[in-house]
Amino acid sequence: MAYELYYWDGIQGRGEFVRLALEEAGADYIDVTRQPGRGTGAMLEIMKSEAEPHIPFAPPFLKDGDLLISHVANILFYLGPKLSLAPEDESLRYVANGLQLTITDFVAEVHDTHHPIDVSLYYEDQKQEAKARSAAFIRDRIPKFLGYFERVLTRNTKGTEHMVGNALTYVDLSLFQVIEGLTYAFPNAMANSMAEYPALLALHDSVAKRPNIARYLASPRRLAFNEEGIFRHYPDLDAAR
Amino acid sequence: MAYELYYWDGIQGRGEFVRLALEEAGADYIDVTRQPGRGTGAMLEIMKSEAEPHIPFAPPFLKDGDLLISHVANILFYLGPKLSLAPEDESLRYVANGLQLTITDFVAEVHDTHHPIDVSLYYEDQKQEAKARSAAFIRDRIPKFLGYFERVLTRNTKGTEHMVGNALTYVDLSLFQVIEGLTYAFPNAMANSMAEYPALLALHDSVAKRPNIARYLASPRRLAFNEEGIFRHYPDLDAAR
Repeated sequence: MAYELYYWDGIQGRGEFVRLALEEAGADYIDVTRQPGRGTGAMLEIMKSEAEPHIPFAPPFLKDGDLLISHVANILFYLGPKLSLAPEDESLRYVANGLQLTITDFVAEVHDTHHPIDVSLYYEDQKQEAKARSAAFIRDRIPKFLGYFERVLTRNTKGTEHMVGNALTYVDLSLFQVIEGLTYAFPNAMANSMAEYPALLALHDSVAKRPNIARYLASPRRLAFNEEGIFRHYPDLDAAR
Repeated sequence: MAYELYYWDGIQGRGEFVRLALEEAGADYIDVTRQPGRGTGAMLEIMKSEAEPHIPFAPPFLKDGDLLISHVANILFYLGPKLSLAPEDESLRYVANGLQLTITDFVAEVHDTHHPIDVSLYYEDQKQEAKARSAAFIRDRIPKFLGYFERVLTRNTKGTEHMVGNALTYVDLSLFQVIEGLTYAFPNAMANSMAEYPALLALHDSVAKRPNIARYLASPRRLAFNEEGIFRHYPDLDAAR
């Protein structure tokens, strides 16, 4: 039976981390809200359902038969072994999950650069605060997170092409997406600093070239980044060149 | 061999979610930074170590022999089955993990009520923004998260005393801590609204009465909440009664 992925239509958002894993593995999946005749209503129906025993707090969530799994890191922890995108060694799976949760925290901070005060308001209504938060994000947080991931990569005793173990995992795919998203949202800041992260850059480039990923990125299934998603390009929030 | 928990000394913080599970289970553990002669230096040593193959991004982290596991939800996912604090049914463990990750997101939002702009600055340097963010948090986010947890509890087909399955899990313990923390940080807001969450309140009270938890809460190992932790009481950020 095909996996069913539920996420907001029209954006990459957090759903994209799951999509990249499913696409790399060539898995049979349905991106439910993008199906004709289903749409976002099909997702909201589950979220509001009285019959569903385990309602999710928010999308994305994955249905595998009767099982409903929510949160990106949880979905990837579940799918990883089934898609051959998790370490073989069981204890390394907790290492992969720890890295994915660090990515989760980083992505939440990316979101808050444009919504530092109130998610129910527009960016334009909190623009001054967004500028201040973005400045701190570019100055302190990008180097802290990317510096950490670079250190993990370069110290991987099994090879510096992968974040954990000696083979591709979903963590590598997610970091590709983080670099893509940051480069879209903060092109100047990333151009100024990316040379400090050569191993991450090499990882990004090698993921982009994987046949299934390259095919996916060139397909209409890969939506463009836009200002409704997590990674948004607002020139006022970026650094100077 | 005893589990080794590493976290900042002097606060409950995120480490407390792990401590509650260890204490409830009566597990053999060492709270490393609070040991005479070790202290925070012992934690920083691991974080900066060149020898450690899997460095954590941030505390808390747990050492179980050679394995180093970071992030609260990851630690609890790992410890849960060993401490008999996870559902027996394997697929329900992903449900538990999804709930714990929702708690993780909520706790991050609690933190941002007092640090909405820049974690490198003091609260006092971002007080106006903290007021705006806290108002939105009290108005929208507390009801959204607690309403969700209340709904999950009251719809648990195995019994409304537990978040998942028919027995105590680490998710129940973590929700106890969330209610404790919110009541400390936002006493007025919680007094105004807590009657809307009777099942959560009953869960909180039943956890507090568990013998191992009651003994822990009365012990010197349970530090008091303070204004260095995640849950901070700043009267300016609370609602009116």
